[in-house]
Amino acid sequence: MTSPASPASPASAAPPAYRRLSVEERRLQLLGAALTLFAHRAPDEVSLDDVAEAAGVSRPLVYRYFPGGKQQLYEAALRSSADALELCFAEPPVGPPTERLARVLDRYLAFVDGHDAGFSALLRGGSVAETSRTTAIVDEVRRAAAEQIFVHLGVDRPGPRVRMMVRTWIAAVEAASLIWIDEEKQPSAAELRDWLIDHLIALLAATAATDEETAAVVRRLLAQETPEGPVGTLARRVTPVVSEAAHLI
Amino acid sequence: MTSPASPASPASAAPPAYRRLSVEERRLQLLGAALTLFAHRAPDEVSLDDVAEAAGVSRPLVYRYFPGGKQQLYEAALRSSADALELCFAEPPVGPPTERLARVLDRYLAFVDGHDAGFSALLRGGSVAETSRTTAIVDEVRRAAAEQIFVHLGVDRPGPRVRMMVRTWIAAVEAASLIWIDEEKQPSAAELRDWLIDHLIALLAATAATDEETAAVVRRLLAQETPEGPVGTLARRVTPVVSEAAHLI
Repeated sequence: MTSPASPASPASAAPPAYRRLSVEERRLQLLGAALTLFAHRAPDEVSLDDVAEAAGVSRPLVYRYFPGGKQQLYEAALRSSADALELCFAEPPVGPPTERLARVLDRYLAFVDGHDAGFSALLRGGSVAETSRTTAIVDEVRRAAAEQIFVHLGVDRPGPRVRMMVRTWIAAVEAASLIWIDEEKQPSAAELRDWLIDHLIALLAATAATDEETAAVVRRLLAQETPEGPVGTLARRVTPVVSEAAHLI
Repeated sequence: MTSPASPASPASAAPPAYRRLSVEERRLQLLGAALTLFAHRAPDEVSLDDVAEAAGVSRPLVYRYFPGGKQQLYEAALRSSADALELCFAEPPVGPPTERLARVLDRYLAFVDGHDAGFSALLRGGSVAETSRTTAIVDEVRRAAAEQIFVHLGVDRPGPRVRMMVRTWIAAVEAASLIWIDEEKQPSAAELRDWLIDHLIALLAATAATDEETAAVVRRLLAQETPEGPVGTLARRVTPVVSEAAHLI
């Protein structure tokens, strides 16, 4: 937003582009330009000059705010994206659990959609911008996702099988996101979301078959679901598939 | 193996350690030393001096064979490990599919067990040894795993849902392997294998519920299973869990 020039003070009538930003404003402006660039390109394809140009400032000015250059800007952008993504995971633990999961996955997939190339480059690895600091940020996001899921599963101190189940499902979601980006975002985000929910329901049922803690979790979750929700729908659709296994039961 | 010194030719009686190796023998000896070191340590924790010491040769000799130094040795070791891992995936497409999968997973988990720290460092990323070449090798192994699974599923040209299902399950297996290494290889490899098989069965059933190609695959697979196998066992164990969902169906 530009402030209108006051006719009483001609000195302040300079074009808005030259309005002096505060240190924090300038920092945020540069970070914003970097975020946009790193969201849609691999870090190796973004230069400091690109950031300077996108922000409409000189290269030395970028260095004044980010003396570590491109790497520092990349890590700051990643930090900011990680914070945004962790906010997507927050969901009140009320209502049918699959509806909560659907809302979180909708926000997550919108984030992936808006950060496609950057998200893909980050998780695929092999970039020179990837360091032990950047992988630590990615791991922190994965841990935050797992913690949120434990809250909704109603487990304070998850046992080994519940932990492994949740963390492998998160890895599956990541892999699905990368494939989705690769395949020009087909199927639709809503269809992908529904399949990821079915995946978790199936995994919970299979794990409950051999793990008592998971079985107790599943009982609590089922009591909160509705017949119209994803669990009921999946159960009805899976019945003809399972009937093919009658000779095995 | 050392060849016994012949008393007729005193010149060949030098200690076995100094026996002159052929170029290929020496290369393989150095690669073998590198493989052992990179299997059980992160690449950043292995130096060229470590390789020279493990092979009982001088540092310049290592450079003569691997002018690219540690990075070249790391990539050669990774190439060799990837080839070994891809061999683990080969399994004749006969007999109950879950038994074939169990044999492949047993070989895979033995590989993970024997390459723990190196496997973990490679897949976690953030190492300076990670380049676009090393990530390309990892992706090649993932693709090889997926291709093998398509063979056993009996699909020549898998559709998008089957591809996504298989690739997300592979990602889940990788994640489970990393957690397994972190958690001091608990549960046992056999228990982890059985859970990974249950995971795939559940995922196949859930995906078959909404994808006709997967449903056809599942019908073909089920016809080849036995009541004592994992599908029958899982189906019987899951029944009480599903009965809790009676109000949803």
